[in-house]
Formats: sequence, structure tokens, C-alpha cells
Amino acid sequence: MDIYQEAVIRQQIGLTEEALLVIEDAFVKLAQNQVVMPPVMHIDISDYQGEVDVKSAYIKGLDKFVIKQSSGFFNNPKKGLPSSGGLMIVIDATTGFPCALLLDNGYLTDIRTALAGAISAKYLAPKKINKVGVIGAGNQAKLQLEALKLVRDYNEVIVHARDLQKAEAFAKTVSKQLDCKISVARLVSQVVTNVDTLITTTPSSIPFVMIDDLHPGLHITAMGSDAPYKNEVDALAFDRFDQIVCDDINQCLKLGECHFADKNGFYQKNEHKVTTLGKIINTPKLARQGDEVITLCDLTGVGAQDTAIANYALKRLQKTSKVEASELGFSHLL
Amino acid sequence: MDIYQEAVIRQQIGLTEEALLVIEDAFVKLAQNQVVMPPVMHIDISDYQGEVDVKSAYIKGLDKFVIKQSSGFFNNPKKGLPSSGGLMIVIDATTGFPCALLLDNGYLTDIRTALAGAISAKYLAPKKINKVGVIGAGNQAKLQLEALKLVRDYNEVIVHARDLQKAEAFAKTVSKQLDCKISVARLVSQVVTNVDTLITTTPSSIPFVMIDDLHPGLHITAMGSDAPYKNEVDALAFDRFDQIVCDDINQCLKLGECHFADKNGFYQKNEHKVTTLGKIINTPKLARQGDEVITLCDLTGVGAQDTAIANYALKRLQKTSKVEASELGFSHLL
Repeated sequence: MDIYQEAVIRQQIGLTEEALLVIEDAFVKLAQNQVVMPPVMHIDISDYQGEVDVKSAYIKGLDKFVIKQSSGFFNNPKKGLPSSGGLMIVIDATTGFPCALLLDNGYLTDIRTALAGAISAKYLAPKKINKVGVIGAGNQAKLQLEALKLVRDYNEVIVHARDLQKAEAFAKTVSKQLDCKISVARLVSQVVTNVDTLITTTPSSIPFVMIDDLHPGLHITAMGSDAPYKNEVDALAFDRFDQIVCDDINQCLKLGECHFADKNGFYQKNEHKVTTLGKIINTPKLARQGDEVITLCDLTGVGAQDTAIANYALKRLQKTSKVEASELGFSHLL
Repeated sequence: MDIYQEAVIRQQIGLTEEALLVIEDAFVKLAQNQVVMPPVMHIDISDYQGEVDVKSAYIKGLDKFVIKQSSGFFNNPKKGLPSSGGLMIVIDATTGFPCALLLDNGYLTDIRTALAGAISAKYLAPKKINKVGVIGAGNQAKLQLEALKLVRDYNEVIVHARDLQKAEAFAKTVSKQLDCKISVARLVSQVVTNVDTLITTTPSSIPFVMIDDLHPGLHITAMGSDAPYKNEVDALAFDRFDQIVCDDINQCLKLGECHFADKNGFYQKNEHKVTTLGKIINTPKLARQGDEVITLCDLTGVGAQDTAIANYALKRLQKTSKVEASELGFSHLL
């Protein structure tokens, strides 16, 4: 079994066009029923304000698949530790034996999540983006903006976060890194009403994208909700969307924006507008239908993305020299 | 992160009374709602005749919990490989970070499964066992007999397996190892009618324990079924049982003997006889109700067992010297 640490994985994998195509392919296979994907396993450790998700998927034609563990422990920062973590076990699909361990601390999840956002924009955002809006000012907000550059040019960003100081700091550093203008909005509605592409990246359990702020020409990538209690887009807004695109419909109905829309009766009446990202990638005429439509892409993060990025990472990693045991200190990898 | 291989795990963990108490405690905690246990994740890889299960559970009071992967790939033997495999990721329950990897190739699963069988017999089998019956002649059949010695004396065993030659070989080697007389029966019914404790250890999808073979004084530990398509005990037989004991009722209704009994209406009408192993361990008066009753224990294997055995294993392993990187060859652990 080969073991790879985060540092070496970071050297090999990033937000590239090649990696984007790898994730596109995973969505297409999912739409073509070429993927065996069990429901997400969720373990609540409320004693320590923590939660662990396990995702997995077998993609036909790939000789390896992944079982991925990812965690969020919200007391960790008080201890000086990152709140999120994770690793991937890579399994040989022909024998069931583990063949590699990717000790990425969630890095590959961050990457495949940002790439899904870029894919969403590639097919659903207006061809020309004037202003991008971002809700949330964390690491994924930055990665989403960076990945968006793979598919669209843009120069102006408006960001909102509950913690305005964090938003200000984000604007300052990310504007330099991505060479664009970033301003901070005090209210979510100021972002939504002024942008044509909106990316929501929060773990909010109270929806903040409201129907009255929607306007023709807006595309929304909602990637924050990935648990039954999370919700960024108000159920009522589903009435205004012209197209609703899920990474996986079943999963979005359990964990995504579709969940509360379904609970409140707004999914059912708009179900004719629902499709999947994989179908759109595979059928270009299903992509954005004109300048004036309003579109939602509901991303919950699927195991197929994990298996795809891990296969890709492993191919690249195996070409480079393997990490030496002595470099790892072995008994204390982390 | 500490990594332990099968050989060193085998040196530290076996079928002992101490380990049995560890597993008993897991069942008690489960019955006391002190365990967070998500449904089993199942991934079918039919392209390669394989299946992978992921189990997990957090037990309150233990500072580590496990995510366990176990696999069965039925073409492996043709390639000269074992059909089953597996590993455990041990997670720090206070931070969510992986802290150890137990590369046990399914050994700890074998042990905790055999111990659950012994616990079943401890509380449900007749106080004095005259003859033990075993259906199946694989590794778990042997381990079940070995674990049974922890709780009951017995000198005579009858074994049946589809492959009679395999049963003969089993009788020959295991009788020496366990110092008891083992005879081979050509028919399942010859086993069931002649023993007072029966252990079924097969992956059968066609039930073979039939109502007409049941007799007063019989206890059955059915540990083979752990998937929706598996079934060892005929649904009709549920009418004759005086007590039906599950490791976990929800899981047994999905994966165990209760599944087809439920589908065929024999669970519902006998639901008043159903309890859990944890409740019985915790309440001795619920144990076997006299010499003449017929009892069934339906074991599907629960994540709580995995978390318990892993915590126990890790404590013992950490007391011994850690495996050296150089011994492992690191890049090719398996």
C-alpha cells in the first residue's frame, strides 16, 4: 500500500483544466448510470460538536475507487486545530484490497468541490460575467473564485460574510491573488441583486437567498448545503428558477437545497425544471437557455467526484517518486 | 498516525475472556442508546463479483471510533488471493482526525464476530451443551467453535458444509485444535435435529434451517446473514422460536434473518418475542428461559463491535513497541 501526504498531493493536483475534465467525466458517468454510489454515511459526534461523513462510489471503467472520510469538528479551532479533516482510502476495484492512502486532510475534497462549481458556471452561468457574488469568506469561497477563472473571465467580485472583518480580509488578500476587484457588501441582498453569478459557500441552516432578490440573468451555484439541516436558498425561490440542476437528485433531496424545497412543496411543483449536471455536460443544448433565465445549481458533493479525483491524483503521484518512509516519520504521520 | 499490520495485531488480540467483555460492553452501550451508529454502507462491484461494506459507530465514553471497510471479492481465489479483506481507520472522537490505521485484513472483524457468537451462547444456549452443530466449514466456523469454549464446555460437534470434502477436512483439523470429536453430516437436518446449540456461518441466500427440524432445548446462533440477499433461517421457523435476539433490530430487519421473516409476515406476529443482545447482557433475567425453549440469535455484525475491538486493540498495541517503518517496506505495505 502506498501512502501519500498532503504536501506531495498538493504539488501534483490543483485547479487545472485537466482536473476539471476529470470531474466532468465523473458527472457524465453518474448521469449515464455508470456509477455505483451508496448514500452518504453520516456520524454525529455531538459530544464534541463534530460530524463525520463517509462517501464512496465505484465508477465503471476505473480500476480504483475511493472510500472517503471527511470531518468537521467545530471546537477544533479553540484547540488551535483546523475544524475540517479527512483522508481517502483507495481500493482496487478488481480485488477489494486497499492499495493507497491519500492523507490529504480534505485537500482533494476542496479541489473537486471547487471544480464542480466551475463546471456549474461553465454550463449555466451567463457567457459574459460582469460581477461575481460570493457568500462566505472561507477557503472554499476563495477556491470557487479561483476555479471560476478556468471557465469565465471576470474582474469584479462582491463578497458577504457574517463576520464582516473576515470578509474585508478576504477581499484584501484574494483580490491580489486573483487579480480582480473585490468589494464587501453588508447584506446578502446587496450581493444577490448586483451580480450575475452567485456562489454560496456557507454551512448556514437558515436560507438567505430570497425570491425577491432574484433577477433575470442570474446563475446561482449553491455548494454550501451538504447535510439535512443546512439550507442556503429559500424554498420559495424554486418558483422563480427556470432551471434547477443537481449533482445528484437523490442526494440533493436529502442534503441539498432541494431538501427543504421538497419538504415545503416547492420542489414537486418545479420538478419539470430539474436535471443533473452530468446530463447537461453530456448534452450541450441543455445548458443555459438564454440571457434572461435564472438558474440554480445545487451541489452536495458526490462520491463519484472523490473516486474520479483520487484516480487522477494517484496516476500523477505514481509518476513522481514515492514518498520515503524516513521523510514521514511513519509512526506519527499526522 | 500509527499504522499496525495484521501480524502484530494477531499477536495482541485473540479470543479471550477480556475481549469478550469488551464486546459485551459494546452491545450493552448499544442497548442503552449510548452509541451513534449509521446504517451500513454497501457498495456492489458486480463487474468483479465483489462487494464492500463500510461500518462505523461512535460509543459514548470511548475517545476513539472506527470506520471499517470490509470486502468480499469472489473471483479472488482464482487469482490466488483471499476473497475477503479489510482495514479499520481509527478516528479521534474529540477532533475527527484519523489517529491509527489497523491493516488487519479482516482479522479483528473475525474476532469480534466470533466473540458475539460466544456471547449469544453465554446468555441463550442451554447451560449444558451435549452437542454443537455448525453449518459451514470456513474460518468463521472454526472461530465460533473456539470462542464457544470461553463460555461452555462441549466435547462433540457435528458439521455440515455443501462441500463435504471441506467438511471432512474441517473435522479432521479442528477436532485436533479444539480437542473435541467432530463428525460430518450429509444433511443440514441431521445436524439441526441432533444438537442443542447450532451455529450457522454461511453466506447462503436460500434458508436451510427449517421449522420441522426445530426441537425443544435448541439454541441457534445465525451469524451468516449480513446482507439483504442472505438468509439461513426459514421465515416460518419464527413461529416456533420462544425468543428472538438481535444484535441490532433495525440492522437485522435489513440484513439479517429478520429481513425475510419481516417480508413474509412472520416477524410482525412474533415481534413480542424480539429483544436485543445488549438488553439480555444487561438484564440477566431476560436470558434463556428454561431448558425446553427454542431460541434464535440473529447476528449481522454491528459497527459498535468494530469500535469496541479497535479501541481495545489499540490500547494493547500502544503498550507494545510500534512497528518500524523499515520492517514494513512502507511503500508496499500489502
